[in-house]
Amino acid sequence: VKAETPLHSLLGMTAPVILAPMALVAGGALASAVSAAGGLGLIGGGYGDRAWLERELDTAGKARIGVGFISWALENQPDLLALALKREPCAILLSFGSVRRFASTIHNAGIPLIVQVQTVADACIAVSEGAAVIVAQGTEAGGHSGTRGTIALVPAVVDAVSPIPVVAAGGIADGRGLAAAMMLGAQAVLCGTAFYAARESLAHVNAKRATLDASGDQTVRSALFDAARGYVWPPQWQARSLVNDFQKRWSAEAGISSDRLKLMQEEYRNALTTGDTGTMAVFVGEAVNLVQSEESATAILHRIMNEAHCRLSGHRSLGASA
Amino acid sequence: VKAETPLHSLLGMTAPVILAPMALVAGGALASAVSAAGGLGLIGGGYGDRAWLERELDTAGKARIGVGFISWALENQPDLLALALKREPCAILLSFGSVRRFASTIHNAGIPLIVQVQTVADACIAVSEGAAVIVAQGTEAGGHSGTRGTIALVPAVVDAVSPIPVVAAGGIADGRGLAAAMMLGAQAVLCGTAFYAARESLAHVNAKRATLDASGDQTVRSALFDAARGYVWPPQWQARSLVNDFQKRWSAEAGISSDRLKLMQEEYRNALTTGDTGTMAVFVGEAVNLVQSEESATAILHRIMNEAHCRLSGHRSLGASA
Repeated sequence: VKAETPLHSLLGMTAPVILAPMALVAGGALASAVSAAGGLGLIGGGYGDRAWLERELDTAGKARIGVGFISWALENQPDLLALALKREPCAILLSFGSVRRFASTIHNAGIPLIVQVQTVADACIAVSEGAAVIVAQGTEAGGHSGTRGTIALVPAVVDAVSPIPVVAAGGIADGRGLAAAMMLGAQAVLCGTAFYAARESLAHVNAKRATLDASGDQTVRSALFDAARGYVWPPQWQARSLVNDFQKRWSAEAGISSDRLKLMQEEYRNALTTGDTGTMAVFVGEAVNLVQSEESATAILHRIMNEAHCRLSGHRSLGASA
Repeated sequence: VKAETPLHSLLGMTAPVILAPMALVAGGALASAVSAAGGLGLIGGGYGDRAWLERELDTAGKARIGVGFISWALENQPDLLALALKREPCAILLSFGSVRRFASTIHNAGIPLIVQVQTVADACIAVSEGAAVIVAQGTEAGGHSGTRGTIALVPAVVDAVSPIPVVAAGGIADGRGLAAAMMLGAQAVLCGTAFYAARESLAHVNAKRATLDASGDQTVRSALFDAARGYVWPPQWQARSLVNDFQKRWSAEAGISSDRLKLMQEEYRNALTTGDTGTMAVFVGEAVNLVQSEESATAILHRIMNEAHCRLSGHRSLGASA
């Protein structure tokens, strides 16, 4: 098995599938399982829980893994980047904010910098700031995203940043999506939802179960769960999750007072301990239609690869070439 | 040249590219040009301008074309469907509303009914109401759309309605998008933006020019231009267009009074006569990045087909099969 593109060599992958660094979900076990299967697992550095990150880096041990951070959150805790770099990850992924402050540190450590963007304009900025790889993330993604859709964003970003390699993210959870992304000019895909219910995922068992029955029609992108968790996100990025009772009820309330906000946040915290999916956010994307059973990360990756192989080798004609 | 799938036979296509029935833009000349090149042109029945539709049907003459209508608008003018059926179109496309009232009339006329939907749930309803073909339209599309993205919606709709053929729409304007749609399980694509600036398009020359310079980052989905035109759309569908001064200025105004609304509508009407793209809506989608010159419909379709052929024949491996 050999790597076929510069991106594969750069990241040590034999399969063009990268695990999205889902906060509190993509831990050391899931990341190393995806990497062991030939892809690249990224541990979710999230909002800066140092103890969580140390534990998950320990769990991954010497496995070939990368770490992903939220750029604007990392600004407040730049020491977490140092912690990650000390473990010699095979890549650092940054998303949601400028990477100017971090790029040279990562570059000097000899680690490839992957930057995830949501617009063509931000792709160009990321390249100017030192990105070695661009992830073009569509609004179909679970968790935070912008507003552009994957199928038009990816080729536009490829055209804008070529020859920098582009990875497609958002709405891709099976081999059809991987094959489609290749056609769009991506060299790999980054998948979160596909692995959310994986056996190695740290998502709550109730949250995993909720994804198996859900339709992509039932997700919504909103700022509500950020308010419920006390996070202040820049307004251009909102988080996609399954619609639930909590989301519907509080979204209907206009102009939430600070007392009401406290109540909302307390309600949310309580639900996390009980695993109540009627209240807590299940951060999955529109591709949740394609997630139908709890499998190992290896089985998921192999299924995606096999299906993509079949699609790519089965299509020889569009009907007009005969 | 032979048709290769049941869908191609049904619609008489040799190239799997359908022209979106853009209101006031996709007229008889554009529709018949797309059909002559092997695709299928749909004339935009729009909001029910009978004189416009009669003229454009006349322009198309005996060409193999279809006609598209807005379902909820057709409810108020069902005679337009009779007008279209009298010309023996090769298909009727309905979108944005129930087709229950029209399906049997269309079926009895022996015309294939194509129904465009924006969710998996609506795809299932459309099939139960008599759709022979489903268009799964992502939110990347120009003009009205729902909120789901194409790359995750198409495979989910394919899974839900199989063996009914599915056409992908939204964000597709070049051969990369066509090849990607095929990988997702679509049997054809429906494109509006790709043909908006075509020589045969009835869009204003200023509007065409605006699309050539625009980025997909600069489109927005909103209800504002519907208000400006005096249309009352069901809230789940909003229209994507280029962002412009008019859109920004009036969107910033909360709670527009009826006097202010009259002023807004007058301002909008005036801009239509002068072709002021700072005010009037240019209804194109996120794939506008991929539209870079004014070409004939034939040249556009051939470019899309050739590029898709290259992509589909060039990909034999994902890197892990070696």
